[in-house]
Amino acid sequence: MTTTRTSGGATTLPRHSYTSPEIFERERQSIFRSRWICVGLAADIPEPGNYMLAEVAGDNLIVVRDRTGAIRAFHNVCRHRGTRLCENSSGMFGKHIVCPYHAWAYDLDGRLAAAPIMDEVEGFERADYPLHAAASALWEGLIFINLSPEPEPFESAFAPVIGKFTAWGLDRLAPAHRTEYEVAANWKLMVQNYSECYHCPSLHPALNKLTPFRNSGNDLTEGAILGGPMLLSSASESMTMDGRLCASTFGHLHGEQRKLVHYYVFFPSMFLSLMPDYAMVHRVIPRDFRRSTIVCQWLFDPETMRRPDFDATRAVEFWDMTNRQDWHICEQSQLGIESSAYTPGPYANLESMIAAVDREYLRALGRP
Amino acid sequence: MTTTRTSGGATTLPRHSYTSPEIFERERQSIFRSRWICVGLAADIPEPGNYMLAEVAGDNLIVVRDRTGAIRAFHNVCRHRGTRLCENSSGMFGKHIVCPYHAWAYDLDGRLAAAPIMDEVEGFERADYPLHAAASALWEGLIFINLSPEPEPFESAFAPVIGKFTAWGLDRLAPAHRTEYEVAANWKLMVQNYSECYHCPSLHPALNKLTPFRNSGNDLTEGAILGGPMLLSSASESMTMDGRLCASTFGHLHGEQRKLVHYYVFFPSMFLSLMPDYAMVHRVIPRDFRRSTIVCQWLFDPETMRRPDFDATRAVEFWDMTNRQDWHICEQSQLGIESSAYTPGPYANLESMIAAVDREYLRALGRP
Amino acid sequence: MTTTRTSGGATTLPRHSYTSPEIFERERQSIFRSRWICVGLAADIPEPGNYMLAEVAGDNLIVVRDRTGAIRAFHNVCRHRGTRLCENSSGMFGKHIVCPYHAWAYDLDGRLAAAPIMDEVEGFERADYPLHAAASALWEGLIFINLSPEPEPFESAFAPVIGKFTAWGLDRLAPAHRTEYEVAANWKLMVQNYSECYHCPSLHPALNKLTPFRNSGNDLTEGAILGGPMLLSSASESMTMDGRLCASTFGHLHGEQRKLVHYYVFFPSMFLSLMPDYAMVHRVIPRDFRRSTIVCQWLFDPETMRRPDFDATRAVEFWDMTNRQDWHICEQSQLGIESSAYTPGPYANLESMIAAVDREYLRALGRP
Repeated sequence: MTTTRTSGGATTLPRHSYTSPEIFERERQSIFRSRWICVGLAADIPEPGNYMLAEVAGDNLIVVRDRTGAIRAFHNVCRHRGTRLCENSSGMFGKHIVCPYHAWAYDLDGRLAAAPIMDEVEGFERADYPLHAAASALWEGLIFINLSPEPEPFESAFAPVIGKFTAWGLDRLAPAHRTEYEVAANWKLMVQNYSECYHCPSLHPALNKLTPFRNSGNDLTEGAILGGPMLLSSASESMTMDGRLCASTFGHLHGEQRKLVHYYVFFPSMFLSLMPDYAMVHRVIPRDFRRSTIVCQWLFDPETMRRPDFDATRAVEFWDMTNRQDWHICEQSQLGIESSAYTPGPYANLESMIAAVDREYLRALGRP
Repeated sequence: MTTTRTSGGATTLPRHSYTSPEIFERERQSIFRSRWICVGLAADIPEPGNYMLAEVAGDNLIVVRDRTGAIRAFHNVCRHRGTRLCENSSGMFGKHIVCPYHAWAYDLDGRLAAAPIMDEVEGFERADYPLHAAASALWEGLIFINLSPEPEPFESAFAPVIGKFTAWGLDRLAPAHRTEYEVAANWKLMVQNYSECYHCPSLHPALNKLTPFRNSGNDLTEGAILGGPMLLSSASESMTMDGRLCASTFGHLHGEQRKLVHYYVFFPSMFLSLMPDYAMVHRVIPRDFRRSTIVCQWLFDPETMRRPDFDATRAVEFWDMTNRQDWHICEQSQLGIESSAYTPGPYANLESMIAAVDREYLRALGRP
Repeated sequence: MTTTRTSGGATTLPRHSYTSPEIFERERQSIFRSRWICVGLAADIPEPGNYMLAEVAGDNLIVVRDRTGAIRAFHNVCRHRGTRLCENSSGMFGKHIVCPYHAWAYDLDGRLAAAPIMDEVEGFERADYPLHAAASALWEGLIFINLSPEPEPFESAFAPVIGKFTAWGLDRLAPAHRTEYEVAANWKLMVQNYSECYHCPSLHPALNKLTPFRNSGNDLTEGAILGGPMLLSSASESMTMDGRLCASTFGHLHGEQRKLVHYYVFFPSMFLSLMPDYAMVHRVIPRDFRRSTIVCQWLFDPETMRRPDFDATRAVEFWDMTNRQDWHICEQSQLGIESSAYTPGPYANLESMIAAVDREYLRALGRP
């Protein structure tokens, strides 16, 4: 499956892309407040009343399943004095979302249901003070939020992949494990790191045995969603510590698909990894220009997970090891790029997808 | 004692008032370097030579009782190389304040008394290098400092309250307890929090039993000193864990005064709370736009404190619990207000005093 | 040896010299990227392949002894994606310096020796991607780096001292001990502190006994290298806890030289202290306008160090005690100078060398 790729003479981005607080702020506006951002899994909030908190572009949001079962997103800010309504990172609401300061109470659809003694204030109307809402969308079991007042239609933004992953039945999967990492590096370094396997022989010898680095090919090569399949070596069945499956192969995969893993970047900040027997979702949450949080979740078929002999350890350990190798080298890259001596360097042909990520990044910032 | 109050359509301040380092710097200039700032109690430095350090607007000051018994304030900065003269937060000076670097020595009135080998420097005159002084004033046992080169006369700034609290004999009281809190919130949020009891039912159920939130009335409603009395419930005697007195009622209180507590904000950063049997002073020390230190002291009659059965625990525990509830909700407000989704919200009529605080704040910043 | 010195009416620098991030950035450009900066000892990397990392003006550099025995300095930045090549603060390279990310490999003279699969990239030439080098120089066993693209010739910058210290045989000495200190003070405060002994009676009573503070005289009084000898008291032999020698007197010292210690500031950031029996080197590494790291090394004759009874403890303890007294007072000066009340103060005549340091500093910033 070796493909012919070229980096077309592209080079790495200039230093200030990774070191400027002003550019970081512009990224928040032009990218993280404008694009659809993955904030978690529908399976994380399965029941009406279930909620989780999410951070997008520095804003804290309540993501909640309402009484009708629909998923909604609200800014975690009381309309009275601005207090955070909710402190716990996840949980279950009762009938209302109640502000702990003065007991203003909101329905799960965001309407202000009660505001003690405010009826004494002339002209006050509860209807004027619903929670500030954000657009949300559900795709393949993943929840996306868009902070823009006029969000691009989700179907248009995700057109390249709608229907593409049906065989994996992603919307049925559930998280078996979750790990959070704090990384001292700009968010783009992790996106770029995920976008090539040129580093696999030196950085991931174990991974490189399961999927030799030349075995990669991209089927989405331009735009906000980029990536493609990678062929397992003949002796390997999946990405695990021993190369063996960790669960049954997904039932609807057949033929060559059972020997492929798929890696996609959903620009700006989500990575979707599909193994024959499980899936993995990375979300990068930029904190500042040189600090990021990464949430990684391992998804399996719930039926498989109910089996007494189910054990995700070999899959979790494999990627946790690989993740740590990647985050560490990203931190070393951040340090090097911060040097006054850094100058943009040439991409290898196997880094053509980074060049595509960089192009999408510059387009999003409005620079062609 | 329920009074008719109205917030007059006022709303909370805009976000940047709580999140902008530039506005914080302007506040330091226009408020904390211009107003009389409470830095502690005369009872904290009872004897000549006693000193304590104070921070005002980021400057460190030595507050000292001089040989004549008068209280003086000096910047903690040697006139030679700028070194801090004094490190300990409180203590007793000998004859001089001696710089540890080159042994320049100052009298307690600030004059440079000795500067080794400086007589060799042509033109050097000790008289040219006294400590930089700040204006100070004493009122009801409280020490105030004013960093302005031309301070507003204290008597004019404090006219509304001079003589007002004579019945409590505040200048005779002594601190029985002191607690310092670090709070991750803008200083104004604590001032606003102290200025209303609308939050008492939800945040302070124990306090709300002793003084139901509707029992409040303000007798100073505009200007830099704001507040008024609150009526204890019929079953309560004071603000303590069990609602019983913690000491004898102050002797000069009579009639209804024995059933009242009084709460006053001294803008910008001091709160004076008067119970029938003790007093409490809060001082808010802004560190940056989102960090503050709060010093809380509990004051009692020294004669009472000498009694073998004196025990301030029920008073200290009651307010320590209440303080922590307040600081925590202020931190949650800071976080919510930092959100891009925050918009000013409407004040309840019971929050009319916050509206007055906000007006004073905007006047101090020179914005009508 | 008391000399007549005058501070000529000079005063300390203005506050912003110690408190402004912008000035700190200007210092990095005009001083730390323009002058020859000491980064360590040749004896720290004795063998070909030995390296150590150094920080100059916020940049990280690899200082390595190449195959020919010459010392070279390279920015620790891979020419491919900018990753730091080397993490350990010191060690031994094999044949190449290999980037851990994609295995680009550099010779010890900086040439790119191998870059896997880059031959597939059209127009890629390894010769175009050597490591970014910095100028380096060796003098009396000390390694200096200059980040300027057109460095002032070392021989011209160091003309005042070339040949001056031959009697001590510094290039033969080896480090017996090394201590690193983190100091919360601007780097200039440590330079100024090292430049006068006016503070010795108050701050260093033990040191002042060995070398009474009046016993100092400077033989280099203008320019980037400043300082001179100080006479030991009649009862003292060296600067140690008991005033006795810690090793044999350097063989080439004779007559009065055996009763002298010498202290020189090499502007901006190195101090050279010569005792009759050992030497000491301080290097100040500015981190930001109020944080510095100081590395202190004690150097002895390697033959002496091989003796079974050799023990540097009395020398190490003496200066470690003195160092800590100095850094602490520098931190107190930083705090005082940050006060809005700080105003420049007059130098004593015994502080004439600080005035010379300040003049050199202002010249370096381009302000006469």
